[in-house]
Amino acid sequence: MVFILNPDVKQEKIDEFICGWEAKGFSTILSVGTEHTAVCLIGNTAQVDLEHIVHTTDIVAYGKRITEQYKAVNRTVRESTVVEAGGAVFGGGRFTVIAGPCSVEGREQILEVARGVKGSGASALRGGAFKPRTAPYAFQGMQAEGLSMLRLARAETGLPIVSEIMNQTQIELFEDVDIVQVGARNMQNFDLLKAVGALKKPVLLKRGLASTIEELLMSAEYIVSAGNGQVILCERGIRTFETMTRNTLDLSAVVLLKQKSHLPVIADPSHAAGIRSLVAPLAKAILAIGADGLMVEVHNDPAKALCDGAQSLDLQQFAGLMVDLRARAGIEGKLMC
Amino acid sequence: MVFILNPDVKQEKIDEFICGWEAKGFSTILSVGTEHTAVCLIGNTAQVDLEHIVHTTDIVAYGKRITEQYKAVNRTVRESTVVEAGGAVFGGGRFTVIAGPCSVEGREQILEVARGVKGSGASALRGGAFKPRTAPYAFQGMQAEGLSMLRLARAETGLPIVSEIMNQTQIELFEDVDIVQVGARNMQNFDLLKAVGALKKPVLLKRGLASTIEELLMSAEYIVSAGNGQVILCERGIRTFETMTRNTLDLSAVVLLKQKSHLPVIADPSHAAGIRSLVAPLAKAILAIGADGLMVEVHNDPAKALCDGAQSLDLQQFAGLMVDLRARAGIEGKLMC
Amino acid sequence: MVFILNPDVKQEKIDEFICGWEAKGFSTILSVGTEHTAVCLIGNTAQVDLEHIVHTTDIVAYGKRITEQYKAVNRTVRESTVVEAGGAVFGGGRFTVIAGPCSVEGREQILEVARGVKGSGASALRGGAFKPRTAPYAFQGMQAEGLSMLRLARAETGLPIVSEIMNQTQIELFEDVDIVQVGARNMQNFDLLKAVGALKKPVLLKRGLASTIEELLMSAEYIVSAGNGQVILCERGIRTFETMTRNTLDLSAVVLLKQKSHLPVIADPSHAAGIRSLVAPLAKAILAIGADGLMVEVHNDPAKALCDGAQSLDLQQFAGLMVDLRARAGIEGKLMC
Amino acid sequence: MVFILNPDVKQEKIDEFICGWEAKGFSTILSVGTEHTAVCLIGNTAQVDLEHIVHTTDIVAYGKRITEQYKAVNRTVRESTVVEAGGAVFGGGRFTVIAGPCSVEGREQILEVARGVKGSGASALRGGAFKPRTAPYAFQGMQAEGLSMLRLARAETGLPIVSEIMNQTQIELFEDVDIVQVGARNMQNFDLLKAVGALKKPVLLKRGLASTIEELLMSAEYIVSAGNGQVILCERGIRTFETMTRNTLDLSAVVLLKQKSHLPVIADPSHAAGIRSLVAPLAKAILAIGADGLMVEVHNDPAKALCDGAQSLDLQQFAGLMVDLRARAGIEGKLMC
Repeated sequence: MVFILNPDVKQEKIDEFICGWEAKGFSTILSVGTEHTAVCLIGNTAQVDLEHIVHTTDIVAYGKRITEQYKAVNRTVRESTVVEAGGAVFGGGRFTVIAGPCSVEGREQILEVARGVKGSGASALRGGAFKPRTAPYAFQGMQAEGLSMLRLARAETGLPIVSEIMNQTQIELFEDVDIVQVGARNMQNFDLLKAVGALKKPVLLKRGLASTIEELLMSAEYIVSAGNGQVILCERGIRTFETMTRNTLDLSAVVLLKQKSHLPVIADPSHAAGIRSLVAPLAKAILAIGADGLMVEVHNDPAKALCDGAQSLDLQQFAGLMVDLRARAGIEGKLMC
Repeated sequence: MVFILNPDVKQEKIDEFICGWEAKGFSTILSVGTEHTAVCLIGNTAQVDLEHIVHTTDIVAYGKRITEQYKAVNRTVRESTVVEAGGAVFGGGRFTVIAGPCSVEGREQILEVARGVKGSGASALRGGAFKPRTAPYAFQGMQAEGLSMLRLARAETGLPIVSEIMNQTQIELFEDVDIVQVGARNMQNFDLLKAVGALKKPVLLKRGLASTIEELLMSAEYIVSAGNGQVILCERGIRTFETMTRNTLDLSAVVLLKQKSHLPVIADPSHAAGIRSLVAPLAKAILAIGADGLMVEVHNDPAKALCDGAQSLDLQQFAGLMVDLRARAGIEGKLMC
Repeated sequence: MVFILNPDVKQEKIDEFICGWEAKGFSTILSVGTEHTAVCLIGNTAQVDLEHIVHTTDIVAYGKRITEQYKAVNRTVRESTVVEAGGAVFGGGRFTVIAGPCSVEGREQILEVARGVKGSGASALRGGAFKPRTAPYAFQGMQAEGLSMLRLARAETGLPIVSEIMNQTQIELFEDVDIVQVGARNMQNFDLLKAVGALKKPVLLKRGLASTIEELLMSAEYIVSAGNGQVILCERGIRTFETMTRNTLDLSAVVLLKQKSHLPVIADPSHAAGIRSLVAPLAKAILAIGADGLMVEVHNDPAKALCDGAQSLDLQQFAGLMVDLRARAGIEGKLMC
Repeated sequence: MVFILNPDVKQEKIDEFICGWEAKGFSTILSVGTEHTAVCLIGNTAQVDLEHIVHTTDIVAYGKRITEQYKAVNRTVRESTVVEAGGAVFGGGRFTVIAGPCSVEGREQILEVARGVKGSGASALRGGAFKPRTAPYAFQGMQAEGLSMLRLARAETGLPIVSEIMNQTQIELFEDVDIVQVGARNMQNFDLLKAVGALKKPVLLKRGLASTIEELLMSAEYIVSAGNGQVILCERGIRTFETMTRNTLDLSAVVLLKQKSHLPVIADPSHAAGIRSLVAPLAKAILAIGADGLMVEVHNDPAKALCDGAQSLDLQQFAGLMVDLRARAGIEGKLMC
């Protein structure tokens, strides 16, 4: 159940309202947005008389029942959320591109890529410092040193940085990362979700390899209900029987996530396809279907990349893609910076 | 192995060339295209000396080995195939829309839909006369009478008609159907594939629910190697663990099919999604990713449709979608009629 | 809705009862079993007063509503069906083994395999004459000649024969085949289902690669509702993301099919695994989980098999497996002949 | 590459041998087993001359190349590993049953279940204290208090206890847990794998929902290569398109894991099926296919269970299953305690 509050209600009135419900055994989530402020009620609301509350309090404009299990991320609560991180804006009619290498491999590499993608119009720089790898003998990332190099690249280019956190003990290391990414393998690492829920910075939550759309929304609910409303959802392909691609990009998920939730939704064509030649066509489809942005792997020398080279664009290919996307953004009614 | 012939080679020379190979135990497929004429050699070609043949015959311009199992549909044979049916053209830079109801339900219904989709710019009319239904107690289609009604609709609107054949005994019934559709459940009905391979008319081959991209190409190979080169491939969603949609549309497949084959490729957002509100967004993505067209379910009164109403657009929604697609076709370099 | 009739009701009374319902617009299925005779009512039975009918007719013992879409195959209709074919019995507490090569490849081959599997205790001989092959250039089976060879093998060994039908035009060719197999790729070839539903002989219906348990039951419903109650269901593995095996054998399906239907259920470990070394372990699991039998590929010389050699047992391996299974049958309360 | 050492080689010789390789830039894994001691070499071994080493050192009996990516868990290293935990033995010809509730819900509940399953012959007690739940509002387990209750139950019954760890910060809490379970959602939580790899106690590693057999082996490799060889693998069903069961139990995986690895392999029919009536049939199949044991959910009052009640056996059903399994163990050549 969600109560949409009247504009200009005083904070003390809201606190009182919330305390009243919590005294009755409900949990509440306060959701302050640009459209309106809302209070979600979690618990057995079957006996709550919505009409009565609207009529007897002077702070509630109207209320709605939420039948889905996800409450705080539910579109019933608000139309849309805009997430801002270091100048990059997700949602609100923009098409925002995050680009960069799978892994930070060295100072020169990340600086070169950062300059390149900045020049082509990317809004944020991605780079893995801690890498989840299937094999223990594979390159595991440059770790804390990788994060330092990302900060250097940010200092030089002004691009906010996005990097994947592997577990909640790393929270402090990510204090100066602009967007904390929770990867596909960690989508249901619930302790990590709770930990990033306690942060005051944007979280990029990727869909798990075999997670349903509803499970992705429930994982976002963990973060938002813990107090952090700045969540960006990311579709990155699901595991199916098809072997010609690495995963199967599920573009219907982008539409459904936007229908059911108020959070911004982007997609990652690189991990979905696993093949370079598919990245640009998929990126165009991602824009056309109404996503709020894109996360794409770009490397200065894909042939020598320490991971995922086969799916990485080089700087020139990325530049070409950005020209193409920008030409299309207008017809989609999207703003590209 | 494929031999690209010199231009203006006389037919008798070609026949002689083919006979020579068949005498040595190979099968051959003669592929006459607008770009060039090619002869595919099927069999154990490991010992065939390509260089030698090019130098010792005067009809072969050059030759190439084909490592894939699919030969006649392989892009090595030619760049692209354009399929033409009753005025509708698939491939060659066009974006061609097939629209119509899941089932023909009556004379008035199909006429109303045909007029509507024609008015909005559809190039062909679809309508199921024989329906493959999971339950024996479900509506099985109007059968031969349904085909008659489609012909009436064609007579009135000029739209070529597309309808699904269920088995090879129905071949004669489909003599006057412009495009014969082989449905997802029949993609590996090999006797049906051979039968439509003997036709002189376009075949629309839909991907099976759990068929790989390679299997779809092999099924097309059945048709083309049997002598019918007019095949249109159709991606329509695959079966995955996700239950919020009917199937998962695999747009990477559209790109890969076009990379690996010379056949035109369209996609069906209606069966993929199973939900009306996803059809338009998916259709835009299908155009953006480079498909040659679209097959979409449209009904004059979806709420009363005898099958698949939940995924059908009404005539007004379809008109809106066509306006939207036409606005986008230019940027894709596609021609919409 | 199903009516269980009193014992010893005269046929004319039953006919009259059925006519009465059909006059009211219902379809009926008469199901004569060893336990009792039942009449299934198909149609909108929401308004039918079950109590009233039991009290006002003297031929109905009791009635039950069937909520599932499958009616005639529903376990509500009867406890279990026993299918008999040329001496082989499926259901009724037996564990019955069908064995033989993927394809009939020649007279000597099929005779040698038939003698071998007969000697080891198989109850029926399988052998493909018409082969559904992904590639048009692969061996397509010995066709009608293959069926003749199977008949020879039957004449010599007394084993009933099982072979796959590809489409309904082959019905006459299969007149003298004991069990007509509908393969995985044809599980939703509805015209074929209707055709074998008109036969008076057992049908072995294999689950489709990506068909749900409910869809398999609906396909069986096509056959039984068309008048042929002699259906054996066969689980043969489903397509999943796992690539180390050809398919994933779904043993839960065996249990669920027996819970929901009265038909006998067997399983095919050979196609499920695609690897010889998995066949015997899976066969033991199939027996342990309560299946009514097994369908296993056996070849006299697997290394030279024209198809599926990698998953075929040789005659000695099969003999060993049968000894093992027979030692286990007792503890399962199953009879092996 | 693995070197099998001669028996009775002195430790200093082994250390010297290992140091030699590490000086050349290889990683090594020392694997001490009952059969023999082995040294795995990790790195680019293409140029290593196996023959030469066997002839020129006096401590190496023989060597073999390992082509798979998993080295330390590879069956090339040894025939089989036996894992022992508080009296429960996994591998070595035993069929060992872990039983208990999904969650520890209270002192009386866990004691009652522990006594019950002990009485029926279970070898270990499972009970979730920290619960990974899809919804943040669902019961999250009794946490540390739950672990205390498990210890109480162990004190009374003598059963070793198994419980799921959620992340590596909980390692100390699990100091007194006999077998640390890494759940399906954490199978690729690589930091957790490294952490449990540093433990000196058995780890039960469950297959991920959408993880391949090879990925499971690679995750085990993380643990074993970190120094902890006491790993038990657990197949628990994979996510497929079928919706009638919670997951699809992949019994072929049990056979393949035992063929490719030396680790003991058990299976969990409860999570695989999600339906109580399937648990016993699947358990029998798990025994028949050659697994080393079983993990099954048992609750004293399934109807009131706080989680997974629908798939839990009650104490009487479990007792019946154990009688049934014990009757079958002999024919499998398995010992049940």
